[in-house]
Amino acid sequence: MKAMMGREDFEAGLRQIGAERYHHLHPFQQRLQNGDLSKTQVQAWALNRYYYQSQIPVKDAYILARLRTPELRREWRQRIIDHDGEEGQRGGIEKWIALTDGVGLDRAYVESGVGILAGTRFAVDAYVHFVQERTLLEAIASSLTELFSPTVIGTRVRGMLEHYDFISKETLAYFDKRPVQAKRDSDFALAYCLDNARRPEEQTAVLDALRFKCQVLWAQLDALHFAYVEPGMIPPDAWRTGEGLRDEGGAA
Amino acid sequence: MKAMMGREDFEAGLRQIGAERYHHLHPFQQRLQNGDLSKTQVQAWALNRYYYQSQIPVKDAYILARLRTPELRREWRQRIIDHDGEEGQRGGIEKWIALTDGVGLDRAYVESGVGILAGTRFAVDAYVHFVQERTLLEAIASSLTELFSPTVIGTRVRGMLEHYDFISKETLAYFDKRPVQAKRDSDFALAYCLDNARRPEEQTAVLDALRFKCQVLWAQLDALHFAYVEPGMIPPDAWRTGEGLRDEGGAA
Repeated sequence: MKAMMGREDFEAGLRQIGAERYHHLHPFQQRLQNGDLSKTQVQAWALNRYYYQSQIPVKDAYILARLRTPELRREWRQRIIDHDGEEGQRGGIEKWIALTDGVGLDRAYVESGVGILAGTRFAVDAYVHFVQERTLLEAIASSLTELFSPTVIGTRVRGMLEHYDFISKETLAYFDKRPVQAKRDSDFALAYCLDNARRPEEQTAVLDALRFKCQVLWAQLDALHFAYVEPGMIPPDAWRTGEGLRDEGGAA
Repeated sequence: MKAMMGREDFEAGLRQIGAERYHHLHPFQQRLQNGDLSKTQVQAWALNRYYYQSQIPVKDAYILARLRTPELRREWRQRIIDHDGEEGQRGGIEKWIALTDGVGLDRAYVESGVGILAGTRFAVDAYVHFVQERTLLEAIASSLTELFSPTVIGTRVRGMLEHYDFISKETLAYFDKRPVQAKRDSDFALAYCLDNARRPEEQTAVLDALRFKCQVLWAQLDALHFAYVEPGMIPPDAWRTGEGLRDEGGAA
């Protein structure tokens, strides 16, 4: 029988998963921030990642529906406000559209989801299903990848601004508030998991949920890399260079 | 407004999707049947595809639960019997284990699902979710890839027997009955779809369901190709050469 981990060991176990499996280690992510991608490849990333962004409030609404106190729901609903926006405050999804605008993609095309990779859709939908089908503890634990995002976001934004002339600070406005939001959200989720995993098998389930979520992020970059970088085998029906561009954008 | 297609045009539209999108066109599939894969790569295929096989009766049980007459359920339950077997008759899943046995993989390892690619899991699970969440017509239509499997199976079996010394007729017993079963099943599903798509938008939904299912198959080979062929980037936690082998199997 497994023994219960102490709080510090349990947290260290979670952070170890991030150190080994978070998508900052993925070659596509490294090429993105090192300026090694073409404009077409950055477009493919922005297009596909939009689908992930668009489903985050859906995922969070399913979790919201499962929380049993006004206090917990107030805490969690902030995530939805951050992504969907409010009066006088653009949400994360609208800011992501500023990014797809900035790289020259047509807004209606991006929002339609036509042309995203099946690998993107299957990975993102797996995340939305996970928070419906697993325990609430696992659903919350699957958000813990945000523990690892703040520093990565800084590196990514600096790298992209430095290397790509088609990327501006406004294009990357999505990332401005994410480090603060991600820290607030992951502080809460981490404390929830440390407090509520009260049996060894619950600790294991939390660790596995975080591993699962790292796979959701990693598999999206695998699909992008395979289709658009190496070997560059674009599946039937997926976006091809020059498709879905803004009128003023011209050829990529 | 879209016009209703005639029965023949509708069927031709379905067959056209197969001609352009079925996974017999995938480079991994072509390498498999042309003898261009290493034993390790064939092991990776057998291991990952086992997860797909294992979920087929689950998928079919969800469809069974939605059928509203004993006649329809009797027809559909045969699929589950074929995969799960019966007294004196090995099912498709057990025969797939004969294949993973034959290429030297440990049975308990294969059945555990440990080591399969996240891309495999997400694609297969997307299929199981699809038949729960979409209309019954779409759920049935998603099985129509079997229209295209009989000839492909013949090519694959001949190619594998010819090219791989670690593959025997017994190893490939899974495929013996599949062409006959697949023809019976897809004849039924095709007639059901042709009869029950009574509005243009239902015809479109049927075509889209078949496109979706082609993506489920294609994305599995994308993930295999990316991890084990080109560029050969195996994700964290996925199976690596030499893992999960049978005791008597030795190194791959």
